[in-house]
Amino acid sequence: MPTYYEDYEVGDTEEFGERTVTKEEIIEFAEKYDPQPFHTDEEAAKETMFGGLAASGWHTAAICMRMYVDHMIDEASQGARGVDELRWIKPLRPGDTLTAEVEVVDKYPDENNPHIGYVDTKLTAYNQDDEAVISWIGLGIIDRKSTAE
Amino acid sequence: MPTYYEDYEVGDTEEFGERTVTKEEIIEFAEKYDPQPFHTDEEAAKETMFGGLAASGWHTAAICMRMYVDHMIDEASQGARGVDELRWIKPLRPGDTLTAEVEVVDKYPDENNPHIGYVDTKLTAYNQDDEAVISWIGLGIIDRKSTAE
Repeated sequence: MPTYYEDYEVGDTEEFGERTVTKEEIIEFAEKYDPQPFHTDEEAAKETMFGGLAASGWHTAAICMRMYVDHMIDEASQGARGVDELRWIKPLRPGDTLTAEVEVVDKYPDENNPHIGYVDTKLTAYNQDDEAVISWIGLGIIDRKSTAE
Repeated sequence: MPTYYEDYEVGDTEEFGERTVTKEEIIEFAEKYDPQPFHTDEEAAKETMFGGLAASGWHTAAICMRMYVDHMIDEASQGARGVDELRWIKPLRPGDTLTAEVEVVDKYPDENNPHIGYVDTKLTAYNQDDEAVISWIGLGIIDRKSTAE
């Protein structure tokens, strides 16, 4: 059964994952979307502030989105309006394994459309050493049970 | 010559692009990172709030990042701490052509590290009908000329 707007409670948390990232996919994504030396070139990356190859922050977000979709998203989800406070806290390195934690931080009905409500969730992803790598607050749009049924 | 922290002025704007997105790449990205029906399945997408296939918001961001890297990023750039107020304003559709506008909205030195400063830029990307599709405020880290020379 889908998780409707009414089913979410502020303070609810979920943990899920996990996903190991390879050097090859870090470079492949970066060559396509974010070709900066610290994302594409293992040698050149050593001379930068990153001190070695690190995934594009957008790649890190995309990997977490995939874990989020696989675990939390169902047909009651209607996308998102955006994201607040996206933070790249630590570099994601080749061989790192991510797990994610999601907390419902707010919910509110749409004033005009009785079919949907808004659910804000804070996602934080950790590496294998339990260090936070990325976090953001997603502004999700969710179907309301009362009108879906 | 690189654009250093000192070279940025609040209020500076740049326009650049353009990039046309195909149905094939929308589906390819979404199957990997955001497999929701409105991003992966042209027929199923018609029955959703999107009313048709639309790019993952993370894909839209990644495409804009590529335009940003190609136009604005040089060796004085040391990545970013994150992004505020990421908004998916309109769906990005197959065949749409994006152009981007970037405005410097704030800058401030690092209190502890004399080698870097922070430059906040608001990126807005528009489709071929001049409708805003996505916007965000990027929190960039930029080398300082005074210590780089």
